[in-house]
Amino acid sequence: MKKETIFIPALILGIVFGAALSLPAEKDGGKVSLGAGNILARKAFSVNIPSAKFVAETAYVGTVSGRDVDKFAITNLTPVRCEYVDAPYVKEFPLVVECKVIKTIELGIHTMFIGKIMDVKADKAILGKRNRPDIKKMNPFIFSQGDLGFYTIGDFLGTIKPLAEKVSPPSKKR
Amino acid sequence: MKKETIFIPALILGIVFGAALSLPAEKDGGKVSLGAGNILARKAFSVNIPSAKFVAETAYVGTVSGRDVDKFAITNLTPVRCEYVDAPYVKEFPLVVECKVIKTIELGIHTMFIGKIMDVKADKAILGKRNRPDIKKMNPFIFSQGDLGFYTIGDFLGTIKPLAEKVSPPSKKR
Repeated sequence: MKKETIFIPALILGIVFGAALSLPAEKDGGKVSLGAGNILARKAFSVNIPSAKFVAETAYVGTVSGRDVDKFAITNLTPVRCEYVDAPYVKEFPLVVECKVIKTIELGIHTMFIGKIMDVKADKAILGKRNRPDIKKMNPFIFSQGDLGFYTIGDFLGTIKPLAEKVSPPSKKR
Repeated sequence: MKKETIFIPALILGIVFGAALSLPAEKDGGKVSLGAGNILARKAFSVNIPSAKFVAETAYVGTVSGRDVDKFAITNLTPVRCEYVDAPYVKEFPLVVECKVIKTIELGIHTMFIGKIMDVKADKAILGKRNRPDIKKMNPFIFSQGDLGFYTIGDFLGTIKPLAEKVSPPSKKR
């Protein structure tokens, strides 16, 4: 993807955890959720990509607030301290991104955090060519807002360069 | 899709078009791409979700700059003026979101735009229950950065509420 693709495609569903291992932060106005409060207080969060076998746990985490329940305890997921930032990550999930908050943007009913990636952790079992995460081995899933449904990743359609060259050969293109 | 969803979790690949129908805007420093320049100048963009039959066109658009080629002409896609903002949308794509820029955030090598959704247009053919876009009828696809591959949406895993209740029944949950 090139620089002009500005609107970031967050392609795969991930669970964001702020510093749930620490005490929750409070914010005036009461708008902020526990997760957002933790992120604000610690300037840190982790993005945790579950594989499809954890779809129920992911759905559950998305429907409750950390104010009311201990999400790790109820789901039997294991919190581990991040190495580079003050937040927990989920041990059982195959891909974890540790992020430091570099910008906080108020959007009305949401607070958006922009993180700098400090570390990416992947289970060896999901690595493919050139030691990169292999999407089929990782087996992540997406959430469809329209029907509130979760879906796996489906058929491979091709890689970007050969597909692009179907439209215009390389000589003409550059 | 609701109006308050400002930062769209773009689970699905979409193509962003600034006002390519207008003259390109220039920005000092030369960092900005044509698309970003157009978005800055017109404070508007559209997010266009292709169905899988347009994967080659999408790949092509992602590999070239509007400075060098007319993306609409080469792909045989049809630009149409948005109704509510000053940007084009792609006639052939089944779902289009018209956005007005409400924030512009410099992130170093990228400029991030946050848009307010002014309108959502969907082809009748992709509508399902309650006149909402049906992801299977829409047949969008995702881009996997790891292998530079495109993939369709796969198997349905369930909807959020029944899945969440597998972890904890409703009475315990709230």
